[in-house]
Amino acid sequence: MFNSLPDSVEIIEVGPRDGLQREEQLLSTADKVALITALLDAGLRRIQVTSFVHPRYVPQMADAEEVCAQLPQRPEVIYSGLALNLKGVERAHKAGLTHIDLSLSASDQHSRRNANRTLPQALHEFDDMFRLARHHGMTIRGGIQCAFGFRTPDDVPPATVLQLAGHLLQLGVDELSLADSAGLANPRQLHTLLRQLPALPPGTPLILHLHDTRGLGLANVLAALQCGVRCFDTALGGLGGCPFIPGATGNIATEDTVHMLHHMGIQTGVDLQALARIARDLQTRLQKEQLPGKLYRLLAPAAEVR
Amino acid sequence: MFNSLPDSVEIIEVGPRDGLQREEQLLSTADKVALITALLDAGLRRIQVTSFVHPRYVPQMADAEEVCAQLPQRPEVIYSGLALNLKGVERAHKAGLTHIDLSLSASDQHSRRNANRTLPQALHEFDDMFRLARHHGMTIRGGIQCAFGFRTPDDVPPATVLQLAGHLLQLGVDELSLADSAGLANPRQLHTLLRQLPALPPGTPLILHLHDTRGLGLANVLAALQCGVRCFDTALGGLGGCPFIPGATGNIATEDTVHMLHHMGIQTGVDLQALARIARDLQTRLQKEQLPGKLYRLLAPAAEVR
Repeated sequence: MFNSLPDSVEIIEVGPRDGLQREEQLLSTADKVALITALLDAGLRRIQVTSFVHPRYVPQMADAEEVCAQLPQRPEVIYSGLALNLKGVERAHKAGLTHIDLSLSASDQHSRRNANRTLPQALHEFDDMFRLARHHGMTIRGGIQCAFGFRTPDDVPPATVLQLAGHLLQLGVDELSLADSAGLANPRQLHTLLRQLPALPPGTPLILHLHDTRGLGLANVLAALQCGVRCFDTALGGLGGCPFIPGATGNIATEDTVHMLHHMGIQTGVDLQALARIARDLQTRLQKEQLPGKLYRLLAPAAEVR
Repeated sequence: MFNSLPDSVEIIEVGPRDGLQREEQLLSTADKVALITALLDAGLRRIQVTSFVHPRYVPQMADAEEVCAQLPQRPEVIYSGLALNLKGVERAHKAGLTHIDLSLSASDQHSRRNANRTLPQALHEFDDMFRLARHHGMTIRGGIQCAFGFRTPDDVPPATVLQLAGHLLQLGVDELSLADSAGLANPRQLHTLLRQLPALPPGTPLILHLHDTRGLGLANVLAALQCGVRCFDTALGGLGGCPFIPGATGNIATEDTVHMLHHMGIQTGVDLQALARIARDLQTRLQKEQLPGKLYRLLAPAAEVR
């Protein structure tokens, strides 16, 4: 169980999107671009930079186009944006993104709240979004939100998740992601679900998107590693959370995840010390007492930063 | 790796000792006894109630004898106290405890700071403490602090830990515990060390004492479960931390640990909802903004408590 761990893991930073989407203190576009640049300099090569959603619901992402226009030009980096409807896909394409994260929820209840549509409606729209993104030649991630429950771990049947995953793979998504949007997953449940997942085509990675709402984030990373997962969404400082899930809190913290991986001998290509400094800086900019992440407090103590 | 998980796990609550030993807000003896009583009512059957150390260094534990005198008489419950020297053992015995937690550090540097003696001196004194406790007919836990490092995961050689463990087992301790006092352990390191540990005699449990300083607490619990560990020290609300370890923070939170175990189908006999309420109440009494534990915030929201 510890002999089959990988030598390296890919970290996808979702802090600029998931991390900032429910912060009261809005960051300026310039601050967001500076944050993304710092993350690149720390070694991250995949960043979800924004979401193309209605600014009335998520004002934090109202500057999606401006952010995309100012992204540092780095050919080795994959920038992605999240879209939940056709308009979002079109906006992302026009903003110059070539990688789109499409997403639907396995929970009908969550789908109604988060995307204002039932699960069958969302599935139908997903197909349309997929075709539009393909038409634009974009690389497509198909994501399943609430894959481990919405209000309880039992209120989303695994069969629904497996059915959706099968559908997305059949459509031909380039990546499949399962999101524990409500932070309800536990290692055993994760293992049970992943074992039942249909085999992914070669070159189609499985990405896990975990939240640390109940403190299980890194335990779930360990279980996922043992199940063969090699790619994780994380957010700097452990920020984040869906505005439409009661009690939802942050993603697994990038720096805490990277620290665990490095100390287990698993490489990520990311500079941990640099990450910690960026997290400390972000805490200051967001005017927060503390971010949920633990490691930055040790690696970049408040007194040492300016 | 998930098929061999146990049906049940034993939780040893160390909050009244480790959890409170560096809190600025001192609890009264009556408050401590009320806390212990509430923990019993929530289903806990093993509680480390205090430590017998010098009140000049740890004033929070100055009322060790008073706490012991007022413990609820429950024959099914095991109360224990921590002692770091002969005087501590004598005090614990006189206070009426029949279960003593003896402890020494695998880090010479930590031993000098925490117990004011070198590792060889500590080992010598441990033997004397053991004999005195045996003379008094006490059940004895032998604990190894800093088993996974003091300042870094590399500064305590595993060979030292294994040698100490062998020595304690040869002496005849009734329980062996390994403490990640500085929260430096990672799942792979844990697995590597536990695999090398000499076989424990039947009826001599291995107890793991983990801190969540770097957010790895529950990932380490998962790894330990997979390695066959069936007994964990935890502290309500995730309080705790050694006053003599820089940056040290809390133990793994009792309620977060119990939640993970229950959701993985592993029983503890503890009422999770009751634990959450006690943690919320303790937060209020300690006049803290928040405790490190995550689950009590969801299960016992502030508004609902009085």
